[in-house]
Amino acid sequence: MISAKKLDSLKLFFRENDGSMYKKMKSNVFELIEPSKGNPASKAFDIFIITLIILNLITIIVETFELPDAVRSVIVTFEIVSVIIFTIEYLLRVWTADLLYPQLSRGRARLKYICSFMAIIDLLSILPIYVPLLIPLDLRVLRILRIGRLLRILKINRYTHALGTMARVFKEKAAQLISSMLVVSLLIIIASVLMYNIESAVQPDAFSNAFETMWWAVSTLTTVGYGDVYPITVAGKLLAIIIAFLGIGMVAVPTGIISAGFTEAINKEKEEEKEEIAYCPHCGHKLHK
Amino acid sequence: MISAKKLDSLKLFFRENDGSMYKKMKSNVFELIEPSKGNPASKAFDIFIITLIILNLITIIVETFELPDAVRSVIVTFEIVSVIIFTIEYLLRVWTADLLYPQLSRGRARLKYICSFMAIIDLLSILPIYVPLLIPLDLRVLRILRIGRLLRILKINRYTHALGTMARVFKEKAAQLISSMLVVSLLIIIASVLMYNIESAVQPDAFSNAFETMWWAVSTLTTVGYGDVYPITVAGKLLAIIIAFLGIGMVAVPTGIISAGFTEAINKEKEEEKEEIAYCPHCGHKLHK
Amino acid sequence: MISAKKLDSLKLFFRENDGSMYKKMKSNVFELIEPSKGNPASKAFDIFIITLIILNLITIIVETFELPDAVRSVIVTFEIVSVIIFTIEYLLRVWTADLLYPQLSRGRARLKYICSFMAIIDLLSILPIYVPLLIPLDLRVLRILRIGRLLRILKINRYTHALGTMARVFKEKAAQLISSMLVVSLLIIIASVLMYNIESAVQPDAFSNAFETMWWAVSTLTTVGYGDVYPITVAGKLLAIIIAFLGIGMVAVPTGIISAGFTEAINKEKEEEKEEIAYCPHCGHKLHK
Amino acid sequence: MISAKKLDSLKLFFRENDGSMYKKMKSNVFELIEPSKGNPASKAFDIFIITLIILNLITIIVETFELPDAVRSVIVTFEIVSVIIFTIEYLLRVWTADLLYPQLSRGRARLKYICSFMAIIDLLSILPIYVPLLIPLDLRVLRILRIGRLLRILKINRYTHALGTMARVFKEKAAQLISSMLVVSLLIIIASVLMYNIESAVQPDAFSNAFETMWWAVSTLTTVGYGDVYPITVAGKLLAIIIAFLGIGMVAVPTGIISAGFTEAINKEKEEEKEEIAYCPHCGHKLHK
Repeated sequence: MISAKKLDSLKLFFRENDGSMYKKMKSNVFELIEPSKGNPASKAFDIFIITLIILNLITIIVETFELPDAVRSVIVTFEIVSVIIFTIEYLLRVWTADLLYPQLSRGRARLKYICSFMAIIDLLSILPIYVPLLIPLDLRVLRILRIGRLLRILKINRYTHALGTMARVFKEKAAQLISSMLVVSLLIIIASVLMYNIESAVQPDAFSNAFETMWWAVSTLTTVGYGDVYPITVAGKLLAIIIAFLGIGMVAVPTGIISAGFTEAINKEKEEEKEEIAYCPHCGHKLHK
Repeated sequence: MISAKKLDSLKLFFRENDGSMYKKMKSNVFELIEPSKGNPASKAFDIFIITLIILNLITIIVETFELPDAVRSVIVTFEIVSVIIFTIEYLLRVWTADLLYPQLSRGRARLKYICSFMAIIDLLSILPIYVPLLIPLDLRVLRILRIGRLLRILKINRYTHALGTMARVFKEKAAQLISSMLVVSLLIIIASVLMYNIESAVQPDAFSNAFETMWWAVSTLTTVGYGDVYPITVAGKLLAIIIAFLGIGMVAVPTGIISAGFTEAINKEKEEEKEEIAYCPHCGHKLHK
Repeated sequence: MISAKKLDSLKLFFRENDGSMYKKMKSNVFELIEPSKGNPASKAFDIFIITLIILNLITIIVETFELPDAVRSVIVTFEIVSVIIFTIEYLLRVWTADLLYPQLSRGRARLKYICSFMAIIDLLSILPIYVPLLIPLDLRVLRILRIGRLLRILKINRYTHALGTMARVFKEKAAQLISSMLVVSLLIIIASVLMYNIESAVQPDAFSNAFETMWWAVSTLTTVGYGDVYPITVAGKLLAIIIAFLGIGMVAVPTGIISAGFTEAINKEKEEEKEEIAYCPHCGHKLHK
Repeated sequence: MISAKKLDSLKLFFRENDGSMYKKMKSNVFELIEPSKGNPASKAFDIFIITLIILNLITIIVETFELPDAVRSVIVTFEIVSVIIFTIEYLLRVWTADLLYPQLSRGRARLKYICSFMAIIDLLSILPIYVPLLIPLDLRVLRILRIGRLLRILKINRYTHALGTMARVFKEKAAQLISSMLVVSLLIIIASVLMYNIESAVQPDAFSNAFETMWWAVSTLTTVGYGDVYPITVAGKLLAIIIAFLGIGMVAVPTGIISAGFTEAINKEKEEEKEEIAYCPHCGHKLHK
């Protein structure tokens, strides 16, 4: 390990040569961790990180199986190593944030990066390992927290245009989607209370209170239909038929909204491409398409 | 409490000063209950009413659980208080209706407001508490009626543009949606009668009559599939396979209609934005599209 | 009842006065049975026929319940009466077919009407009552045949624009929809044979042959999921997971096709409306929008 | 059978008359196996091959039933005969590949054809019969391989425009569809690990590890809902409610993407049709859009 003293002297050395070596090293690191076309080292780094994320994902699933202690200790070691790598990556990204936002000052750029959605996900995914070192926490809770790590896989898509389009569609249609969800929630509550009044007398176990009936309502409205709870009275079945039909509408409305959103997004992109002024090749006049 | 006499004198006082104070107070009340941008008091009133509605919603669900008497009495008190508040709000809205429709006479404006969809919902949501005071009714029926109160939550959306777009899409596509529902209903009846003829001999309990078979048909066509009733003969299974496939179409058709409706709504809004002035390429005059 | 002789003389009478009374009566009947705006008699006739169809529909369902003999005999009488009315309506429509297709000769117009989709449905819906009078048939078969009568309800929509749009969308997209169904059928067969090989050893009863496995495949692919048959091996569950995901695609593809079809239909209708040549109001030049 | 010697002499004969008879025969064969309008022989050949494929499909299903030995031997004979026919068809297609790609040399054309998607499917569908002749393989594995034969039915659509449009839509939207699948996969893993932590204590059999929980998650998210595994704790039910709702989104997003894709495809085709010559309003010259 590098001693703290040596590190200080290194830091000093770079500071002194701030104009050349420090800057060059920083920009090299930045190029490595940021995706840049035609740079094989950057691409290799990307593949390495993504592989690490997927392996982490697999270990989370494998952990739930009954495993011999030897395998379990290998998994624990692998987890620690990968969190250390992710921590270094996170720190490097914070360090080079001023190259990502060249128009901002160094401090502001770093703050902006730390507050970005992806950086928060990165932090949340490495935090669960460090938290028990600082605060003694119940292990059971920790296991749930560790799932935050899964969000790391979103990094794979950091670069894709497609996920961006999807996010934009959802953002633009948020008001409509939330409205439709509100209507559906209202529907579920009405159905639950009605069904509770209808069925609780005949099936007091299955429809014991409005929450249990809500379980039935959601199961029916989303067309999942586990079949653990269902009405047996005529009135109950009639209500269930209405709810099942409204469930079709429940799929249709958000689908319609999202579908229109994607059609709009495509048209917008096309229009932006087309919005160039053309000139008549014969007389040279401007032609607005 | 304000005595009836005092109230009369107050009324008289306002009537006398009809030109100034009464009108001013009325417009102040109107501004408070109607959403107006930049008015913090109006915003606070909105948030208060919405919070009250949500709390009422929660109590309806909580009521179905087994509760100690102390909690139950708190809920009853809370319900009475909130219905009084809702009643006052309703009366104030009726009172200020002539400011909402300034082009109408006072009486007509109030009548128009009372007959509006939202006012009817408001009235239905407060009525269940008052009804037993006037007519002695069975309590069981009342509990069902009380669900009308839930519709109050639609007020939250009274102001949203999104719900309006959704309502317009449904209104415009109503004929097509009803047509597709008609076809589906016909399909369900045909499937039910056919299935009754096929399965009733083998499973007389599950498929005892066409209504019970209809229960199966809806469960299959909406792809809920509880699994409480299903065919066991080869002919029955073949029919169920056809019905399940038509169920896919049943989702596809309304979704397609609604989806096209939303795309149309977006295009219409855009066109309205674009309706700019064009110029005739021949004489150079302005042309309104 | 009118005797055959009297009928002949009536017919002769009309033939003799072919130029006036016969024609006038025919056109009156045609106006009555065909929907014509502003004609109250025609509207009343429409409502009467539709009511009769719905009542017939209800009797079909009611028949499957256990009923006292008195009720059953009433139903049978009602059925006979309504079939007689439908038969008269059918004959009148054939008789007035030359007014429906004025450009054709009388014989050709009648043939064209008899071969039209709606006339075939009409005939099929009244035939089941007459068939046993001509050929002795098993009653069990007849009950199934009687469902053809339900198709009469499609008459309600004979006049709606909406059902026409839907039919056109389906017709235009038929090739794509059939193609997607073909892909799905292939998928089901592949899934069934694979699943039979995987699960039949462990669950020989549930997955006894490829047809039983197909029952599972359809139930999963259409997301119905009754829960009467499901894989229990790891390989079987993995296959079921893949099939369930493809089921999502199965909904998505026809929905996408139909949705695009409806959007296209709307655009086409709009374009047809817009396709008028406009003139510049200032200089009088033609302006193609 | 034709002896190898005779075949060689035939080949030589055709080579010698390369300019006339060999070429003519080849082009005749090519016309027969390739779909060409107005050629009844070619159409008959198509129908024959498609019938053979469908019959093969049926035998695969029939084979899984318990059959007498006589029927089984008929099926085996039929399979061998049809594979021989398919092999001849495959070889003829390879032989006439230079007529399919006239711009390429004979060798390159054949290689290009062999590597085409349809040719690979053809090869895979006939290979399973020949493999055990070369390498001794376990019969169990072979049965699974034989399903490759089913892909032959895709040939039916080789000629349809519709399947081509569908394939293009999927290809163009691949990035978005894969992205949405990635988000869904992440969702499933998160739901599985969370649910394992919530339910495994109460239902150790049903939720024994993350894979079993994943089985539940997929069943819920795709709205299949077999009902063999479902949560019974309050926390588990709440999670299941959230997952069921996200399941609606899971249908909505790919449907929206595909729907927008089909709308785009239609517009593109229309635009290509419309790409007519326009005239510059300033100088009157032709303008190609």
